[in-house]
Amino acid sequence: MDTCKAAVFVGANRPLETQEFPVLPMERGGALVRMQMAAICGTDVHAWHLDATPAPMIFGHENVGVLAEVSPEIETDVLGQRLRPGDRVIFRDAPCGRCFRCAVGESCERTRSYGMLRSDEPPHLRGGFGQYIQLSATPWLLRVPDDVSNERALLSVIGNHTLLNGIERIGGVNLADTVIVQGSGPIGMGALNQALLGGAGRVIVAGAPESRLALARSLGASETVDIADYPTPEARVERALELTGGRGADLVIEASGGLTAFQEGLEMTRFGGRYLVIGQWTDYGPLSANPALLTRKVIRVQGVFSAGPRHIIRSLQAMRGLVDRPVENLITHRYALEDVNEGFEAHERLEAMVAVILPNGEPA
Amino acid sequence: MDTCKAAVFVGANRPLETQEFPVLPMERGGALVRMQMAAICGTDVHAWHLDATPAPMIFGHENVGVLAEVSPEIETDVLGQRLRPGDRVIFRDAPCGRCFRCAVGESCERTRSYGMLRSDEPPHLRGGFGQYIQLSATPWLLRVPDDVSNERALLSVIGNHTLLNGIERIGGVNLADTVIVQGSGPIGMGALNQALLGGAGRVIVAGAPESRLALARSLGASETVDIADYPTPEARVERALELTGGRGADLVIEASGGLTAFQEGLEMTRFGGRYLVIGQWTDYGPLSANPALLTRKVIRVQGVFSAGPRHIIRSLQAMRGLVDRPVENLITHRYALEDVNEGFEAHERLEAMVAVILPNGEPA
Amino acid sequence: MDTCKAAVFVGANRPLETQEFPVLPMERGGALVRMQMAAICGTDVHAWHLDATPAPMIFGHENVGVLAEVSPEIETDVLGQRLRPGDRVIFRDAPCGRCFRCAVGESCERTRSYGMLRSDEPPHLRGGFGQYIQLSATPWLLRVPDDVSNERALLSVIGNHTLLNGIERIGGVNLADTVIVQGSGPIGMGALNQALLGGAGRVIVAGAPESRLALARSLGASETVDIADYPTPEARVERALELTGGRGADLVIEASGGLTAFQEGLEMTRFGGRYLVIGQWTDYGPLSANPALLTRKVIRVQGVFSAGPRHIIRSLQAMRGLVDRPVENLITHRYALEDVNEGFEAHERLEAMVAVILPNGEPA
Amino acid sequence: MDTCKAAVFVGANRPLETQEFPVLPMERGGALVRMQMAAICGTDVHAWHLDATPAPMIFGHENVGVLAEVSPEIETDVLGQRLRPGDRVIFRDAPCGRCFRCAVGESCERTRSYGMLRSDEPPHLRGGFGQYIQLSATPWLLRVPDDVSNERALLSVIGNHTLLNGIERIGGVNLADTVIVQGSGPIGMGALNQALLGGAGRVIVAGAPESRLALARSLGASETVDIADYPTPEARVERALELTGGRGADLVIEASGGLTAFQEGLEMTRFGGRYLVIGQWTDYGPLSANPALLTRKVIRVQGVFSAGPRHIIRSLQAMRGLVDRPVENLITHRYALEDVNEGFEAHERLEAMVAVILPNGEPA
Repeated sequence: MDTCKAAVFVGANRPLETQEFPVLPMERGGALVRMQMAAICGTDVHAWHLDATPAPMIFGHENVGVLAEVSPEIETDVLGQRLRPGDRVIFRDAPCGRCFRCAVGESCERTRSYGMLRSDEPPHLRGGFGQYIQLSATPWLLRVPDDVSNERALLSVIGNHTLLNGIERIGGVNLADTVIVQGSGPIGMGALNQALLGGAGRVIVAGAPESRLALARSLGASETVDIADYPTPEARVERALELTGGRGADLVIEASGGLTAFQEGLEMTRFGGRYLVIGQWTDYGPLSANPALLTRKVIRVQGVFSAGPRHIIRSLQAMRGLVDRPVENLITHRYALEDVNEGFEAHERLEAMVAVILPNGEPA
Repeated sequence: MDTCKAAVFVGANRPLETQEFPVLPMERGGALVRMQMAAICGTDVHAWHLDATPAPMIFGHENVGVLAEVSPEIETDVLGQRLRPGDRVIFRDAPCGRCFRCAVGESCERTRSYGMLRSDEPPHLRGGFGQYIQLSATPWLLRVPDDVSNERALLSVIGNHTLLNGIERIGGVNLADTVIVQGSGPIGMGALNQALLGGAGRVIVAGAPESRLALARSLGASETVDIADYPTPEARVERALELTGGRGADLVIEASGGLTAFQEGLEMTRFGGRYLVIGQWTDYGPLSANPALLTRKVIRVQGVFSAGPRHIIRSLQAMRGLVDRPVENLITHRYALEDVNEGFEAHERLEAMVAVILPNGEPA
Repeated sequence: MDTCKAAVFVGANRPLETQEFPVLPMERGGALVRMQMAAICGTDVHAWHLDATPAPMIFGHENVGVLAEVSPEIETDVLGQRLRPGDRVIFRDAPCGRCFRCAVGESCERTRSYGMLRSDEPPHLRGGFGQYIQLSATPWLLRVPDDVSNERALLSVIGNHTLLNGIERIGGVNLADTVIVQGSGPIGMGALNQALLGGAGRVIVAGAPESRLALARSLGASETVDIADYPTPEARVERALELTGGRGADLVIEASGGLTAFQEGLEMTRFGGRYLVIGQWTDYGPLSANPALLTRKVIRVQGVFSAGPRHIIRSLQAMRGLVDRPVENLITHRYALEDVNEGFEAHERLEAMVAVILPNGEPA
Repeated sequence: MDTCKAAVFVGANRPLETQEFPVLPMERGGALVRMQMAAICGTDVHAWHLDATPAPMIFGHENVGVLAEVSPEIETDVLGQRLRPGDRVIFRDAPCGRCFRCAVGESCERTRSYGMLRSDEPPHLRGGFGQYIQLSATPWLLRVPDDVSNERALLSVIGNHTLLNGIERIGGVNLADTVIVQGSGPIGMGALNQALLGGAGRVIVAGAPESRLALARSLGASETVDIADYPTPEARVERALELTGGRGADLVIEASGGLTAFQEGLEMTRFGGRYLVIGQWTDYGPLSANPALLTRKVIRVQGVFSAGPRHIIRSLQAMRGLVDRPVENLITHRYALEDVNEGFEAHERLEAMVAVILPNGEPA
């Protein structure tokens, strides 16, 4: 029996440990994937600090890999493209099709999330921070086109798919819309990308530090607002109105998670405008917000997290539409499996836009 | 020159005064309407208490009347129906068609609101609390079908049209939806009516007092939640979840204006559900709300006030669809023009669901 | 081993034969349903005439039954309601969740349709025209509430679910819409039901014979147009315009399958209106249609067949909203399993609105 | 009193005549525009051949000009931007706000179309093929930003605005959509532009001749299909399926006006796909179309012509989003007022993509 290595979470705030695991025979209907690239997500770093996170666990839920073995039941990917060992793929657990959320078109209630399962139970290899990952029967697979780099494929499931979900739900970007993005992390960059692809006339990114804002401008942001220059909510709202003819933006996208961001966003939205909320994931309990802005400005607000199959398909294909933009630059830090703890540190110091693990080293 | 009487606001908190006005010749392109019924709106009562409200002013912006004179330029109503003196009509100022809000399909920036204009300037008669009202060139007019009572015609522009606007914006009621309505005033009753007409499977109304909830049940509410029995936000949320299988409602409609209502409504909405906010009009500044509920439950929120022409057309026609329901019972108090101050008092004591003025007395 | 009876298609135009089948042990993850009521669908009658239909086969794809046995894997139905033997259910094969159509929210490419599978391969019992039906792992199940009759449960999957799919896709019924339904068969009746539930102000049904139109009126149709009285497309279009103030209907629903119906419907639709096409299923090749009507009247057309899980859930619940309407009258003919061929004849003579088989006799 | 020149239609198929007209004082509330550039539209050429076209008439309904005089009532354009003589503008007659179509958000029933009014009645100058044009009270005006050329401003009201209307109605371009455009004239080029701006992954243009297809590729078309190479409907459909993995396009846009185009487009659309029909304006009576494709592939079709105010605003702003594309190349022929008949000939010979008149000569 072959073995392989994986980085294992062994308890809150303890360094991840590199351990050896057996590569068990595939489950019937399953597949075995040799990992290429996995992102260190903010969620991983957050979980790493929590006592409640089950240990041991192999993190890594944003992944690109190569099919090593594949069950005969799996003939094609979701687009009907023939699949063979050696194909690069994006993958997830398939939706059950039988729960209430599946019925109403929401995310499945029963889907397992790779990167969030215990590693002390077979088949052990259930996260992207390992050389191999075992997929249960029968996985949802999407082949990565040859002209799409690992970096772009990975970015397609970092924020960009969620943005596509959110933009679809809120009714689309209207051509020539003025868009304000709150936040300049990976989700904010996804918001910038997708708003531009969707036809926005101008995208204004508010965030920090200046290095990230420079990256935003290189990706097509028309203007940036540095929160070092506009340190208060009032100053940011005033600046946003100034940049939008006093009217506010057609579409505001919250991608910051800031404690005052929601109320700021409502104030930045124009009469009849729309506000997409993605960053407000951490539950801080009730914050401040003025609901009279909703009625008086006839605002639509849409919350969103995660994404469905069609958003992933589009997200991957959309990466090609960004052909002339230096999207790969969003991946700022690369680590070998053994150096995963350095990656966590870079993430915590806000040095990295996106840090990735290369569980099998740099591709040849 | 003829004269007529009108009830005039002469200063904050002072009794309205019945005054005599000349009925001036119609403006070219205008029309003269003999009033039948005008509602005392909460907005009127609110304005009556404000020092900032310009005086003198004839209130009354929810009106039904009869065309007394009509300019030759006005041949038809908005549906293309021939108009003649004697026709009952609903009316408003036409949108300008040239402002930004008109361009993007929102309410016109320039439209005058009858019932909110000074009476010391010609043509004086600009509100529904008078025997006549003067319409400027060229008004928006909708003929009231003969089989629709004054009461129903009036109710079509009390809340029901705004509900239709809101329901359209939030994506419609889905057939068999479970709907929770927060609030049991006139807007809450409009929410109940329109949700039922739109195909809701169940409508739960939360409000007070019991007399209003009984009226809600007579109009088709499946269940009611008396806030006397559930006096805290927590108790109301718990009850709402209990009534919806722990899942929350498909659609929640806020029609209460309560200080904690917005946060309660977010908690009452199911995963993937929708929340229409209408009652949060008074600007109390920032209140408490947890934006993490938006993302975690993928909620859509839509604020709304007022309505456009198509909503008024539909609202009037929808009144016929409520044929077997005792909608007229929503109008609980009727006053002669001279007794308008009694009506304001009944409104303030929350005795009246809807109180109306009959400026020319009860119709023959 | 137990046995049971089923009516079997044994070849084109030959009488269905009642045969004996073993009731095999359930598939792991599957369920065994004791049939209560199955509809004879036009599709069955059509298939019965075709040489290409595989034989032997047990027809019956619109079914209501009682859970006889259920795998332990199946704890709940799609709404999360606990399932136990004895529960009445509506059922279908679950979507795979991994094909392109599943990904984009369309009907699954891989789903098996019960009532369209060969009976000479185990587990044999795969259609509703038998005393039992074997469901594969892991089925999509929806419990029928106790206050919904078998008749209503069955009707919820005869046309009504497809209508809900179509109405959702075309953007909903707008409150107070004037709707024209072309056709007075089961689909036309579903269109009438769902348009009324969705808030239509008037529904005009065009069809024949008068007995069906009388049934339509008893279900709430405002007017009917008998094609015996209006035998030509021109006459029907003229009548439709006459009934809609010369403007045409807000929404036209095609449920007739007629050769000239599509062009008629385009002419009956108002400027800016919508046209839902359901009946045009048989592929006659190119027919006559004037596409200039689409642009000149800015019409939206939506084709539809079948329905997704959420439409079935809503369709079943919507049956309760029709509480005061004599919906059960749509089921005009009832047959024992042995008399299935009589049912086919009644269908062919257009005598039956909906004819059903009671494979285990009338319920006690 | 000043005079100016205009090209006048004096009867079917007769050369347009250059005539002298008085420049009358502006109507109260109106404006006087000095023309910069007017397009020769296919509609003009069509009208020129018709006996039914009223004469005399000054054609020209796609126009860019400079405000020469403006009534004091007109302070701002539709975006609220201050207007002054010397400003470049796009203009139209404002919607009335009181007709049924205005009420339901469709194009106004009463709006006059400049370029389609008699020139023998004051104020005579009512079309773009003259040095001046007189606008009635109170016009709809949109200022052209300084960084947008006359060519781009003009193109924003040639097809592009209609495309935006159509794309909005059909539910937007989905990111990464594969789009097929039928037709390579000005409307087809607008379809290409707007599909790309809206985020389409690939746009395939089918048309002729090769010079137009080369222009399409220079504007971003991924592939082109020359109808010289694929001369039959069957060949074009086969090619379209070949280019789309046998599945058909997510979105097909008809911009050809061809007699077989509608049926071809239905065949080119994927299951669950959408079909926007713009080119089918000429009423040839019933053509061939197979409505079974609508139901079997669950297709949505949307017809459209013209555009509303918000589409024009977006269309003008969208021209800036095409900054790196050689959009100006779509204007292939330029004529002085006196040479207008040469322009009509170039249009008829299909030599010109867009031919324009410069009524006051080339700008300095």
